[in-house]
Amino acid sequence: MTRTLITNGTVVSATGAIPHDVLVQDETVVALLSPGTAEATGITADTVLDATGCYVVPGGIDAHTHMELPFGGTSASDTFETGTVAAAHGGTTTIIDFAVQTAGGDLRDSLDTWYAKAEGNCAVDYAFHMIVGGVDDSSLKLMGDLVAEGITSFKLFMAYPGVFYSDDGQILRAMQRAAELGAMISMHAENGIAIDVLAAQAAARGETAPIHHGITRPARLEGEATFRAIQLALVAGAPVYFVHLSSSEALEQVSRARAEGHNVFAETCPQYLYLTLEDHLGAPGDDGFEGAKYVCSAPLRSKHESHGRDLWRGLRTNDLSIVATDHCPFCYKDQKELGREDFRAIPNGIGGVEHRMDLIFQGVVTGELSLERWVETCSTTPARMFGLYPRKGVIAPGADADIVLYDPQARTTISAATHHMTMDYSAYEGFEVAGGVRTVMSRGRVVVDRGTYHGSKGHGRFLPRGLSSYLR
Amino acid sequence: MTRTLITNGTVVSATGAIPHDVLVQDETVVALLSPGTAEATGITADTVLDATGCYVVPGGIDAHTHMELPFGGTSASDTFETGTVAAAHGGTTTIIDFAVQTAGGDLRDSLDTWYAKAEGNCAVDYAFHMIVGGVDDSSLKLMGDLVAEGITSFKLFMAYPGVFYSDDGQILRAMQRAAELGAMISMHAENGIAIDVLAAQAAARGETAPIHHGITRPARLEGEATFRAIQLALVAGAPVYFVHLSSSEALEQVSRARAEGHNVFAETCPQYLYLTLEDHLGAPGDDGFEGAKYVCSAPLRSKHESHGRDLWRGLRTNDLSIVATDHCPFCYKDQKELGREDFRAIPNGIGGVEHRMDLIFQGVVTGELSLERWVETCSTTPARMFGLYPRKGVIAPGADADIVLYDPQARTTISAATHHMTMDYSAYEGFEVAGGVRTVMSRGRVVVDRGTYHGSKGHGRFLPRGLSSYLR
Amino acid sequence: MTRTLITNGTVVSATGAIPHDVLVQDETVVALLSPGTAEATGITADTVLDATGCYVVPGGIDAHTHMELPFGGTSASDTFETGTVAAAHGGTTTIIDFAVQTAGGDLRDSLDTWYAKAEGNCAVDYAFHMIVGGVDDSSLKLMGDLVAEGITSFKLFMAYPGVFYSDDGQILRAMQRAAELGAMISMHAENGIAIDVLAAQAAARGETAPIHHGITRPARLEGEATFRAIQLALVAGAPVYFVHLSSSEALEQVSRARAEGHNVFAETCPQYLYLTLEDHLGAPGDDGFEGAKYVCSAPLRSKHESHGRDLWRGLRTNDLSIVATDHCPFCYKDQKELGREDFRAIPNGIGGVEHRMDLIFQGVVTGELSLERWVETCSTTPARMFGLYPRKGVIAPGADADIVLYDPQARTTISAATHHMTMDYSAYEGFEVAGGVRTVMSRGRVVVDRGTYHGSKGHGRFLPRGLSSYLR
Amino acid sequence: MTRTLITNGTVVSATGAIPHDVLVQDETVVALLSPGTAEATGITADTVLDATGCYVVPGGIDAHTHMELPFGGTSASDTFETGTVAAAHGGTTTIIDFAVQTAGGDLRDSLDTWYAKAEGNCAVDYAFHMIVGGVDDSSLKLMGDLVAEGITSFKLFMAYPGVFYSDDGQILRAMQRAAELGAMISMHAENGIAIDVLAAQAAARGETAPIHHGITRPARLEGEATFRAIQLALVAGAPVYFVHLSSSEALEQVSRARAEGHNVFAETCPQYLYLTLEDHLGAPGDDGFEGAKYVCSAPLRSKHESHGRDLWRGLRTNDLSIVATDHCPFCYKDQKELGREDFRAIPNGIGGVEHRMDLIFQGVVTGELSLERWVETCSTTPARMFGLYPRKGVIAPGADADIVLYDPQARTTISAATHHMTMDYSAYEGFEVAGGVRTVMSRGRVVVDRGTYHGSKGHGRFLPRGLSSYLR
Repeated sequence: MTRTLITNGTVVSATGAIPHDVLVQDETVVALLSPGTAEATGITADTVLDATGCYVVPGGIDAHTHMELPFGGTSASDTFETGTVAAAHGGTTTIIDFAVQTAGGDLRDSLDTWYAKAEGNCAVDYAFHMIVGGVDDSSLKLMGDLVAEGITSFKLFMAYPGVFYSDDGQILRAMQRAAELGAMISMHAENGIAIDVLAAQAAARGETAPIHHGITRPARLEGEATFRAIQLALVAGAPVYFVHLSSSEALEQVSRARAEGHNVFAETCPQYLYLTLEDHLGAPGDDGFEGAKYVCSAPLRSKHESHGRDLWRGLRTNDLSIVATDHCPFCYKDQKELGREDFRAIPNGIGGVEHRMDLIFQGVVTGELSLERWVETCSTTPARMFGLYPRKGVIAPGADADIVLYDPQARTTISAATHHMTMDYSAYEGFEVAGGVRTVMSRGRVVVDRGTYHGSKGHGRFLPRGLSSYLR
Repeated sequence: MTRTLITNGTVVSATGAIPHDVLVQDETVVALLSPGTAEATGITADTVLDATGCYVVPGGIDAHTHMELPFGGTSASDTFETGTVAAAHGGTTTIIDFAVQTAGGDLRDSLDTWYAKAEGNCAVDYAFHMIVGGVDDSSLKLMGDLVAEGITSFKLFMAYPGVFYSDDGQILRAMQRAAELGAMISMHAENGIAIDVLAAQAAARGETAPIHHGITRPARLEGEATFRAIQLALVAGAPVYFVHLSSSEALEQVSRARAEGHNVFAETCPQYLYLTLEDHLGAPGDDGFEGAKYVCSAPLRSKHESHGRDLWRGLRTNDLSIVATDHCPFCYKDQKELGREDFRAIPNGIGGVEHRMDLIFQGVVTGELSLERWVETCSTTPARMFGLYPRKGVIAPGADADIVLYDPQARTTISAATHHMTMDYSAYEGFEVAGGVRTVMSRGRVVVDRGTYHGSKGHGRFLPRGLSSYLR
Repeated sequence: MTRTLITNGTVVSATGAIPHDVLVQDETVVALLSPGTAEATGITADTVLDATGCYVVPGGIDAHTHMELPFGGTSASDTFETGTVAAAHGGTTTIIDFAVQTAGGDLRDSLDTWYAKAEGNCAVDYAFHMIVGGVDDSSLKLMGDLVAEGITSFKLFMAYPGVFYSDDGQILRAMQRAAELGAMISMHAENGIAIDVLAAQAAARGETAPIHHGITRPARLEGEATFRAIQLALVAGAPVYFVHLSSSEALEQVSRARAEGHNVFAETCPQYLYLTLEDHLGAPGDDGFEGAKYVCSAPLRSKHESHGRDLWRGLRTNDLSIVATDHCPFCYKDQKELGREDFRAIPNGIGGVEHRMDLIFQGVVTGELSLERWVETCSTTPARMFGLYPRKGVIAPGADADIVLYDPQARTTISAATHHMTMDYSAYEGFEVAGGVRTVMSRGRVVVDRGTYHGSKGHGRFLPRGLSSYLR
Repeated sequence: MTRTLITNGTVVSATGAIPHDVLVQDETVVALLSPGTAEATGITADTVLDATGCYVVPGGIDAHTHMELPFGGTSASDTFETGTVAAAHGGTTTIIDFAVQTAGGDLRDSLDTWYAKAEGNCAVDYAFHMIVGGVDDSSLKLMGDLVAEGITSFKLFMAYPGVFYSDDGQILRAMQRAAELGAMISMHAENGIAIDVLAAQAAARGETAPIHHGITRPARLEGEATFRAIQLALVAGAPVYFVHLSSSEALEQVSRARAEGHNVFAETCPQYLYLTLEDHLGAPGDDGFEGAKYVCSAPLRSKHESHGRDLWRGLRTNDLSIVATDHCPFCYKDQKELGREDFRAIPNGIGGVEHRMDLIFQGVVTGELSLERWVETCSTTPARMFGLYPRKGVIAPGADADIVLYDPQARTTISAATHHMTMDYSAYEGFEVAGGVRTVMSRGRVVVDRGTYHGSKGHGRFLPRGLSSYLR
């Protein structure tokens, strides 16, 4: 039995910031103590972590990552090992990755493959959503087994016909099944059928540069798919959670449904808050292909519209409940370059698992978000949304001791030269960040301290999840 | 040369009612004259039609009929001959029927088949929309030819997979083509993919009675498809016109798009204003199958919701621009009965071409609509919407003399025993109607007078249409 | 008895444009004739007006003018004589001016004063709205008398406390009375109580230049008053018509109420379509006071917001039903100059009665409006809205022969040097106009032809009005 | 120094429920301990409170009470002493009462009067909002002093002309001042000017029964005032908090403003969730005057509309942030009876401070709200909204030990026979409540235990408040 006392810090929760101490015993938080109480009550600790000047926050939960994802003839460049090390460096102590059944595959086998990929390799704890790429009687039945073993959310795609795509009948059936099980449906909401027509037309016109990836995926078609999924969910009586919401049009639909009291939720990602179609996806760069670094789906949106401003507002109003990264890294060389002749062949994805906490903290600095919302959108709500609370997402007696000491006075610059993700570029290269992670504790163990990694492969464990706290 | 003077009536247009005379020469209106002016100017007529006590209105235009439509192993029971005779009796002097290309068929051949069905058989003038059941390079190309010959609107289906259904990519392509041509896209907006899942599930549960037709086609899935079609239209830059809009949910989407100034239009039909899911589709009748008479798509909606009230409001506000019938009659015996074991086999359709003018006039009587809106929704707007104005839809010099003398003091009762449609029942059996058609003139010829038919087969001619007056 | 035949023109109505002839006998239209019919039927005319190349449109109706209005220690610079001559030159053959009861005055006496001002002086026909500046038992009772004599609309002010202002209780009572009478309530919707605080604060800070007139009347306070008036109208069961609607915020409220089917209507004015806060109200000019020329209430709005674009859209969608001018001219010298030290002392108003038809026709030229909507918003709807139809607002048998031959090929430039209004400047100085009035007929008499005035003082008659055609 | 250990309970916060112990030392929470940790670490307590089977929740905060309020010639029947004893019995350990400046009074003196009323009399802690009944230079200046001494919210009235009413100019000025100070504006949003007209008309028609109180205060006029206050707040740049929001119409405006990201907040009260116009305000009772018991403003709303359902939804979506009581009790005899001849003379108010926690817990029982939202709306958010967090509203180290042990298995029936409020009736007479308060601790002292009062007059202290946590 080992005890650590985190002292002199200000503990931040979803409702406010209070100076007090945190006592960790082995892997678990066992006490919150007002300053001086440890001493007064004679509590002793093996280690004292001095958090003077720091916010003490529950470890970040990234509810959307894709380690080692096979995509478009290559694979996401971070393994579970490298990706979770990078996450730890950025103050994220839990990832919820996506196990993938592609069309034609078997749900059970697919999940087992993902268990195998992650087991023994992770630096921090992990859980899985299940991508259901082939909705049929067999996979619908298996959804029940998966819920029983802690896979309580199922992702469907309205895009990528022939790969992940489900048609509206399949979506409806999966939603009906989720409703029976109390499970969550996560949705990639873009009208992929229409998008593929636009993309083929663009390619036929010779418009093959990366920016056409964005132009052929108009925001209207994200708004459309979002409304459609909501209506299907209401017919089925199921909750629906929109991943990587990127546009004002999609937000409007989520916002309306939430105002009507429905079980509709959404996440956005840092790339949609900070990067734009014109400045990044359309960045010509040295060789006219630099924009490929910013190809992801949903795509970056136009800076001439109100998307970024609206998304920050959505985070404030809770119409956007969560910030996740959709971490899906590919190197520029050899990977992004697969699409040099045709944007449709560029692997879709941006890596960001390492910088989410920092990037969203900038919203606190600039006044977009309160300190509490930073913690809530990056940790507490992901835990509650996906059945990990109160084990994760909160600093409370009995919770896993996943704790970050965050120094608001620190200053760092994001760069591929220094990051820990397996990427030969950074989408945020040169961003100057106010604030920074000082110390990261995962289940009671300091895994990162002042930039140095002290963790170990396999420390991270699989987290079976319960049902969402938000449904009614 | 023959002249007829219609005198002593009150001529109603889309903007008001004014007592004046109408001079018809051969097939055409040649003058509007203030009372007494004919005499004062020495104008003589071969015939004088005394319209004392009557409204003199432009002949009705039913923008949505399906004569002789093959559907579900049978055919709509009215031929062009019987259907247009019935139309004439009800004060409708133009129909716009749907030529049908089903999936796999050829657009050109399909249209020619419809020309042949109608030619020489119609009692009143007719035009065609074209149903494009198979959007591909060939049909897209042919759309240009059709516009040139006066077929300027193309209907797509978001329902009936395997029969008329187009996927979102096909819809987008057809809309792009319509945008190029200045043509109109008409849309059957129901999410047929999801509906077919619900219907199959109901059937599997033994829920095979007619009411399940309605229950498995929820209003949300009409609202969804409506929004989707609007977004696709906006991406394509094309106008879109929703046929047989039946629900508050769909109306809300149309209303919102119109408030934003988009080229979005809709019609509703009398059945959605007067008949309901519970009272009609669910009517058990003698043998538990009477509801089959009311099976149509979109289906009748619940009386416990606000659909009917909202649709009347939509007609007032012009969010619903047109009243058409979706006349698609089937006899109860032998036809509707095909679905006795399974509602999915009931031919979809209700006949009503004969009673539209009367049924909507009841809205004037009860204060739902002004007299002007009656004329506008039933005649003037259909003409303007579908490129027939000013030849049709207005009583003005140069217009075809399609004129109805409508007696607001008449009283009739709708019944299969007296109607002229080829149907062994009436969806409006026993409805008592205030007002009634007295005399109907088609291109200068009195075809119906006080209930007696004076027309002849083949009097009606094909009307090549121009582009819509409403686009900008 | 005199007959004039207008031939070879294209007659434009609210529903379309049709080439035909118009036969006028004395003051009235007696026949519309298809080309050649006059000859074929032996109709002869004393005069033939060749309208080749011209649109033949019903004379414009300006539903909002203030001739000789006492305001802020001076009076509007156009008399009924000069103002109606200017109107005639611009193709406007009817004005509806405002008789004014200020607080403390007697409604009956006030109206009689206005009758006296106008009688025998007008070049074209005129009618009156009544401004009720003092809602009390006496004026409420008198409203009934006024309706009986053809004053069927009553204007209230939510601005100008101490002058025209009614509080919400007075507004409610006047609306209840209007509901009883079937009369219309017109509303100046700006929160004058709050505005006066802002204006006094600005003046106290030394912000006295004309632009502060606009800055202290924010669009939110027009939107607020608009919503408030709608709610009061709905409580009272009365219709409400918003004058000089200037902002997106106010339009949004009108649009919402109309979508819900309520008797809510609005006009906008050319100044809100063409002039802006920054470019005009804030125009420094030679002496820093030029902006005074553009001081009107509601004020011009910011070009950095979407007002102008939204107002054009509102005209298309019919959420804005009418274009009027709020013609309230003051000369720059001696009149506008009264506010040189303090914007609050600048007389509020812009003159424009002469250029409305031209300015809105530009919308046809640029594609903002259809030709039909030009006629509808400038003539037909004003007539129907304010109980003048079908005497005015339409070219039809029996209607007054108020007819404008409008040449779309003409080109003119607006200038104080050439206009006929009593103003030493033009708010539209230098505007180049495509199209122009060729000939203007008022009750059968040509009063303007190719720029020459042929009318006479006193030709114009008072028009008692009926109730609105739009209420239900 | 005294220590109490609350053990075996489930501590509920705004984010979830976790079984753990709470250590209280003197007046303050000093530690939260996972089960067993106290023993393991050798922590001892003077007293152990066994919370087995109970929820352990932060003491309720009633943000809206009116103890001893002079109103309509009488005074609210609870003193600070009796009212706070009743509050304690119901698990409410903080009230925020309203100090009242009526028109003509002095702000400073008024507040001092209220300090004097409360001091030494309260059973639990209390704070004050300030009603500004006379906005002028003096009171605006004094607002700054009040913020400095912990009165950080100011209430204005859009109703009650001549008593509390502020006109829109006064409201704007007070909001501008609040914006400067970072203070909150609370608003009674009903259009009192229009309401007084309706009420006088009703009375003149002899409609004097209690139900006319509700009929003459239509929901539209709450919606109107709500929108107006929001627009004024946006012009001023101030936050606004709506008290006793009662209707769908008002909620719609709040909801819209919140979706746009504005600093707009609202509370509702149990009476609007449980009582209705028809069943309660219109209850004829023995003598036809029973409805007087339910006269409050905003009034109870019609059960035939969607108010109650919408308000529960608003609590779920956080468009309604807080449940307060607007506790303003009057006895039926002698007090309510003042209005026997005229509903306008009935003192406005319902008492409920004792039953808020129970009544809202019923929403948890029926599934309207989650357990977390119960705590959040009744305690945590009031604390954060009104600058009491983290001293109040949370069980955390350093917080005041205001703690309620709530037994979900308890069953009680509300009755005037058993309640502790000074009222001769209960608005909720006979309501059967699932769940009930077992033990109430105020600043570390058990003041109520199993229905027995152990507190003392004067234990409650004045709480100076900071600024709201919610503004940005």
